[in-house]
Amino acid sequence: MVNLTPNPSFSLSIRLEVPNQAGMLARVTNAIAQCGGNLGDIKLLEQTRKVSLREVTVDASSSEHADEIISAIKEIREVNVLEFYDRTFALHQGGKISVQSRIALTRQSDLAMAYTPGVGRVCRAIAEDPAKVFSLTVKSNMVAIVSDGSAVLGLGNLGAEAALPVMEGKAMLFKEFAGIDAFPLCLDTQDTEEIIKTVKHIAPVFGGVNLEDISAPRCFEIERRLSEEIDIPVFHDDQNGTAIVTFAALRNALILVKKALQEVKIVINGAGAAGVAIARLLQQAGAQTIWLCDRKGILSTQRQDLNPQKQEFATETSGTLADALKGADIFIGVSAPGVVTPTMVRSMATDPIVMAMSNPIPEIQPELVKNDVAVIATGRSDYANQINNVLAFPGVFRGALDCRASAITTNMCLEAANAIANLIQPEELNPEHIIPSVFDPRVAPAVAAAVQTAARKDGVARI
Amino acid sequence: MVNLTPNPSFSLSIRLEVPNQAGMLARVTNAIAQCGGNLGDIKLLEQTRKVSLREVTVDASSSEHADEIISAIKEIREVNVLEFYDRTFALHQGGKISVQSRIALTRQSDLAMAYTPGVGRVCRAIAEDPAKVFSLTVKSNMVAIVSDGSAVLGLGNLGAEAALPVMEGKAMLFKEFAGIDAFPLCLDTQDTEEIIKTVKHIAPVFGGVNLEDISAPRCFEIERRLSEEIDIPVFHDDQNGTAIVTFAALRNALILVKKALQEVKIVINGAGAAGVAIARLLQQAGAQTIWLCDRKGILSTQRQDLNPQKQEFATETSGTLADALKGADIFIGVSAPGVVTPTMVRSMATDPIVMAMSNPIPEIQPELVKNDVAVIATGRSDYANQINNVLAFPGVFRGALDCRASAITTNMCLEAANAIANLIQPEELNPEHIIPSVFDPRVAPAVAAAVQTAARKDGVARI
Repeated sequence: MVNLTPNPSFSLSIRLEVPNQAGMLARVTNAIAQCGGNLGDIKLLEQTRKVSLREVTVDASSSEHADEIISAIKEIREVNVLEFYDRTFALHQGGKISVQSRIALTRQSDLAMAYTPGVGRVCRAIAEDPAKVFSLTVKSNMVAIVSDGSAVLGLGNLGAEAALPVMEGKAMLFKEFAGIDAFPLCLDTQDTEEIIKTVKHIAPVFGGVNLEDISAPRCFEIERRLSEEIDIPVFHDDQNGTAIVTFAALRNALILVKKALQEVKIVINGAGAAGVAIARLLQQAGAQTIWLCDRKGILSTQRQDLNPQKQEFATETSGTLADALKGADIFIGVSAPGVVTPTMVRSMATDPIVMAMSNPIPEIQPELVKNDVAVIATGRSDYANQINNVLAFPGVFRGALDCRASAITTNMCLEAANAIANLIQPEELNPEHIIPSVFDPRVAPAVAAAVQTAARKDGVARI
Repeated sequence: MVNLTPNPSFSLSIRLEVPNQAGMLARVTNAIAQCGGNLGDIKLLEQTRKVSLREVTVDASSSEHADEIISAIKEIREVNVLEFYDRTFALHQGGKISVQSRIALTRQSDLAMAYTPGVGRVCRAIAEDPAKVFSLTVKSNMVAIVSDGSAVLGLGNLGAEAALPVMEGKAMLFKEFAGIDAFPLCLDTQDTEEIIKTVKHIAPVFGGVNLEDISAPRCFEIERRLSEEIDIPVFHDDQNGTAIVTFAALRNALILVKKALQEVKIVINGAGAAGVAIARLLQQAGAQTIWLCDRKGILSTQRQDLNPQKQEFATETSGTLADALKGADIFIGVSAPGVVTPTMVRSMATDPIVMAMSNPIPEIQPELVKNDVAVIATGRSDYANQINNVLAFPGVFRGALDCRASAITTNMCLEAANAIANLIQPEELNPEHIIPSVFDPRVAPAVAAAVQTAARKDGVARI
C-alpha cells in the first residue's frame, strides 16, 4: 500500500493557548513539522500580554496521523490545546446545501403572488401550455443527481444514506461551476426497473438527470432506458463525464507525442462504467485499437464470463494486464491503487502516455515512472494533469439546459471534450499541462457553448 | 358568481412617462381609481425638468380588469405607458427557489473536504453508523413536498408540471416560517402504489414528507401506508394542516360563544381530504355530533355511494346541506364558492360559528351575514380570522424534525392546534380575532415546542 502525503481530507483545526513569548509558536510549528503534518493557515484570535490564542490548520495523512500530531503538540508543556476538530467532519455538519427562496416574502402581497391565490393563475397557464413549465418554474435550471449508493466513489456499495454526502458535494459543484440548481436524490432501491420508474416519476421537476455512483452493469441499462424514455437529458457522470475529460486530456497528450488516435494501441484497465464509456467515446472519436482489461485480465473472446458491455470490446488476445501493456502507446486506468508496476510501464511503446486515474491512490504513483513516460496524468489535485469530471459535467448541463436539449448525444460529448482540450493553447501545451485547471473559469462556458452547438446540429435542442 | 375585489394575484407593474407638471400624476391615479384599480406603490425612477419616469403598482380583480386599467391610462394623451407587466407572472420567471451551497468553494482544500477525496471519510462514517446521516447530511432539516397534481388548489387535476408553482411556493413558506429546507417533487403518476413506492425510494434524503394536493380518496391510503412504511414523519397538509388550524380557530370561537365542543352540532360541507380530516380531528378532540355533507347532501347510512372514509361519518339522517344546517352550532366549509345562503345561516342555532374556507371565494361572503353570526372565519387574508395552513405545517415539521420524530401522531396535531389557539390571550379574544396572524412570529416556535412535547409523550421522538 502506498503511503499518502498529508492532504486536506484529513485536515485538523486546533485551537491553542500559547505563552506570548518569542519562539513559542515556533515550537508548535516544529512539533507539527517533525511528525510530518502539513501546516495551513495560522490565525491569531486573541492576544494579551501573557498569552496568544491561535487557531492552526494542519493536514495529516490519516486519522492516526492526526492523533499523532495532536499528541506531539500536547507534549509541549507550555502550550495548551483548548480544542481540536476534524475539519472535514465539521464542514459536513448539517449538510452542505440548502434550499432558498429567490423572492422575499415580506408583505402579504408577496404571499398572495407567490402562493395562493396568485399562484393558481400560474398553474393554470402551465396546464394550458405545458412548455411554460420551463419558464415559470425551477425546471429549466434544475438537475436531479440520482444515485442508488451501489458504487460510492471507490468505496463500494455503501447504500443510499452513505452516498448522500457525495451527491450534496456534487450539487455544490453544479452551483459553483455552472450556476445550476441541483438536488441530490439517493434511492433506497438498487433494482434497475425501480430506479428507472422512480426517475421517470420525479422527472417533471427537472431539466436534466445526472446519474452518479451506480454500479456496472446496471448503470448501462438505466442510462440507456432513461435516455429513451424521458425527454430531458440523462448523463451518467461516471461514464460520460469521465470519458469526456479523459478524451480531452488524451487528445492533447497525443499532440505532444505526435501520434494519431487512429494508430495508437490503447489499454484501459477497469471495465466498469468508466472503462466501457471511455472505450466507447474513444472508438467514436476514431480509435482503432482498444484493449480493455478487468481484474481477470484482457477481455478476450475466449472468456465466458463477460457481460454484454464487456463483450463489445472483447479481442482475440488473452493475457494479463502486464501482457496487454507490452508495446501499448496509452494506458488508461480506472481501476485500483498500485496495480501497475514501473516494469509494466517500461514495457510500453516509446513515449508512453499513462493516465492513472484511480482515486485517491492511482494505479501507479507518478514519481515512480517520471523518467519513463512522455506524459502522466492522475485524478489527484496534487500532481500535474488532474483528470477531474468537474471539467465536464457543469458545462455539459449548462449547455444542455440552455438549449432545452431533450438528450445528450455522442457528438455533444465529443465536442465537450474538444472544447476542454482546445483551451490549452499550442504554446502552453507541455507534458505537465495537457488539461486546464478545474478552477479555470473559461472551462464551463466553453463546454456549454460547444455542447449547445452540437445539440443544435443533432436536432435535440428545443429552443 | 361573486365579484372579487382587486387583489395582489392580479397585480400590475406599469412604467409611465409623465410630464413633469403639477396634476399629471393625479390624472393617472384618478384614471386608475375610476375603473376600480387598487393603487399600491408609486416609485419615482427618474426625473428631468420635462418628464418623470414612474413605476406604479396596481391591483386588479381579473385579467380583463387589468386590461381595462391599462386602457384607461393610455387614454390620457400626455402620459406614455412605456411598459407594463403582470407581477405574479414576473415573479414566477425561472422559478421561486434555488439550491445553494452552505460552504464556499474557493480553495482547492475546500473541494478536497466537501468532495473527493475527503467526502469519502464522511460516507464511510455513515455506512458504519446509519444514524449519522442525520448529523452529516441535509436530512435532518430537509422535507419533501410531494404532489401528483391531482387536486391543485381548488383547480382540479392539472397534473405534475402545473402543480409545481404551488409546491415551490410551499418550499418558500417552509423556509420563511420555520427555516426548513424543502424540495418540491411533482410526480408524473397518479397511481396510489406508484406514488407510495416512489416516496419510499426517495425517503433516504429527507427528514419528513409533506404530501400536498393529492385528491381524495387516494390521499387517505397514501398517507396511511407511508406513515406505516417509512420511519420519517408523513403529513398531508390538505388533511392534517387544515384540520389543525380549523380546530385551533374553533376552540377559540367556542370560548366566545360559551359552548362546549362535546355539545355542539357541527356541519362540515366537503367530504374530501380536508373535510374528513377535520371531522376526524374534532372527533379525537371530543366532538360528539358531526355531520358531513358532500355535493349530494348529508352522508347518510342510507346512501350507497360512499367510500370508506365517508362511511366513517355516515349518520341516520338524510337531506341537503340546508337541512343539515338547521339548528347547527357550527358550519365548516371546505367545499365550493357560494354554496351557503344567508337563509341557511339564519336557520342555524343561536350564536352560530361559520368557517367558510373555500378559497379564494368562500362558501358565503362574510358581509352577507355579518349580523347573523357570532363568529365568521374564511381562508382569505382580506377578512378577519384567516384560516391558513401556514399557521401549522412549518411549526409541525420544525418540531418533528428537531426531535427526529418517526411519525406524526394525533396528539401532535391536537397539541399543535392548542398551541396556535393559546397564542390569543383571553383579553385579546374577540369575534374578529380568534386566530393569530400568519405573520405572527410566535406561531411556528410555539407549535414546534408543543409538537415536540407530544412526540416525546407518544414515544415517537428519537432524540
